[in-house]
Amino acid sequence: MTLESIRYRAGSLQILNQLLLPHQTTYEEIRSVQDAYEAIKSMKVRGAPAIAIVGCLSLAVELRAGAGGDDPVTFIRESLCHLTSARPTAVNMGRAARELMEFAENESMEKNSEQLRESVISWIEDMLERDVNDNKKIGNYGAQHILSGVPRDSVTILTHCNTGSLATAGYGTALGVVRSLHTLGRLKRVYCTETRPYNQGSRLTAYEAVAEGIPATLITDSMAALTMREMNITAVVVGADRVVANGDTANKVGTYQLAISAKHHGIPFYVAAPSTSCDLSLESGRDIIIEVRPPEELTSINGIPIAAPGIEVWNPAFDVTPHQLITGGIITELGVFLPSELQAALTGRLTAL
Amino acid sequence: MTLESIRYRAGSLQILNQLLLPHQTTYEEIRSVQDAYEAIKSMKVRGAPAIAIVGCLSLAVELRAGAGGDDPVTFIRESLCHLTSARPTAVNMGRAARELMEFAENESMEKNSEQLRESVISWIEDMLERDVNDNKKIGNYGAQHILSGVPRDSVTILTHCNTGSLATAGYGTALGVVRSLHTLGRLKRVYCTETRPYNQGSRLTAYEAVAEGIPATLITDSMAALTMREMNITAVVVGADRVVANGDTANKVGTYQLAISAKHHGIPFYVAAPSTSCDLSLESGRDIIIEVRPPEELTSINGIPIAAPGIEVWNPAFDVTPHQLITGGIITELGVFLPSELQAALTGRLTAL
Repeated sequence: MTLESIRYRAGSLQILNQLLLPHQTTYEEIRSVQDAYEAIKSMKVRGAPAIAIVGCLSLAVELRAGAGGDDPVTFIRESLCHLTSARPTAVNMGRAARELMEFAENESMEKNSEQLRESVISWIEDMLERDVNDNKKIGNYGAQHILSGVPRDSVTILTHCNTGSLATAGYGTALGVVRSLHTLGRLKRVYCTETRPYNQGSRLTAYEAVAEGIPATLITDSMAALTMREMNITAVVVGADRVVANGDTANKVGTYQLAISAKHHGIPFYVAAPSTSCDLSLESGRDIIIEVRPPEELTSINGIPIAAPGIEVWNPAFDVTPHQLITGGIITELGVFLPSELQAALTGRLTAL
Repeated sequence: MTLESIRYRAGSLQILNQLLLPHQTTYEEIRSVQDAYEAIKSMKVRGAPAIAIVGCLSLAVELRAGAGGDDPVTFIRESLCHLTSARPTAVNMGRAARELMEFAENESMEKNSEQLRESVISWIEDMLERDVNDNKKIGNYGAQHILSGVPRDSVTILTHCNTGSLATAGYGTALGVVRSLHTLGRLKRVYCTETRPYNQGSRLTAYEAVAEGIPATLITDSMAALTMREMNITAVVVGADRVVANGDTANKVGTYQLAISAKHHGIPFYVAAPSTSCDLSLESGRDIIIEVRPPEELTSINGIPIAAPGIEVWNPAFDVTPHQLITGGIITELGVFLPSELQAALTGRLTAL
């Protein structure tokens, strides 16, 4: 079985409510841009690629129902602004909004409202398909690269956070690499960190692994280095919220620490991300502002307090892994690149596996 | 205010029930060896030094009430065997039992039952006092050593798990060093990891810090490396379950990873432990067997499931930090030693600060 986090057929969109996972598998209908805004804001859907897809698909649903009337461009612009404001740090929604807006404005010069609506809907539906296909390419490139170092053996992977079907349009990035290895019959086991404080590993990655029969073991974040030493880890593979020009990578907090431990143990460290998560406008990771989230994510679980009352908390959501620690490479839909090759590869000056 | 985890007056013993912390501060009467056995087994009291103290004090309480009659040696032996079996990996209880038994057997050659009871009771009551005094020495030696590198500034410490009043007879080991720095007016702040899966950091260390007004910030285990990079950490100080002859140190899982990150950032890494936690009978950390605990510690909190049902779990309770990563030193009640100096220092062939 393949887990579907987003169900879309022309004019109908449903999302798996991730707030209820792993205990309840409930799909919710998204009928409007406002529905999508609320689902993104409340984190019923999460993961930078998934946020962009759901946001844009909700717009397609409304356009199919005739929204925007005689001035669809204004409707599209206002909808995209609203969607982007739901989680402003998710880079993919902002990028999709800019690209889609540019496309819509160009189309509007030659087409009437009805034709414009049609072509925007096609663009969005292509985006869904493209994202899944890109993830499958990431999975295959990553799997081949990892296996090239171990010609015959099965491999053991360590991953962080959730980067699977639940974070993307489907298949996943880092977890897509794990899926590909599993499909090839070459995955011995994946170790997934629970990923405090929001527990995306224990709730979501574990859920995907159990659902698809991928051999997986849950550990706490604090056990990663011990796991690297004791469990013969072949590679560490993580996703990315944003990769900048020099290869520095912002990702879920804890990624930096994993990269340090991987380096200490001589284990290759990979970042898996579609080129849409790469932001060449920033030179280095120093320019990335880290979102600090509410203390309650650490001090309670499901509303139940778990920490001493009155304690101060620091809760950064992301950290930046410097490119020097990304020793395996950056896995994109275009191939696997060293951080130093990324910029040339993405601007078409380099092709590589 | 100083937090008391063990309240003892001649013949009367009470412990702070740590299972109810941080939400309820409840002292429970320990009237017998069996009461202590149950409190240790159920983890109402925890921390290797505290387990030994509570176990022995419960014996003193019974002896004061005349237990053992005409053959106190047999009663003492059976009681100590029973107490040691409650948490066999806690090295201090086993050591205290051996030392106390040897003392009791020697005394029994010259003394009658009543005199023997008296001298064993004194031995145990001295043990309580000695443990607190040893911890204060650890605190002072550690604070001086850390401050010697930064003559004028206040310092920022990162610590792991709980090693404070709640884990010892009082004052604490690693947290004792933090207390001493605070008393000296030289502590800017302590960062404490929540210490998954059992949350000793968020429940207990945070509780102690709030109770005593020590400036403290809670982070997840995954944020430690980022904290080292961003928060100007002066030193990392942790406790120990066992330090072996070459300085390799078994401690709460996650310690190894902290030591790797500290090394990466050039931050001195200290282990604070009384000499009673040092076990020179083992040559290196490779000989330490790591206790693996039940999956439920990761998959639920307070009985409420938090992970995907069906996921496999690996839950090692401890890890071993190789001596090469203990760059600051091992802080004991005898002074601060490099791992390579430990054996000579503990066998009286070396004295040092």
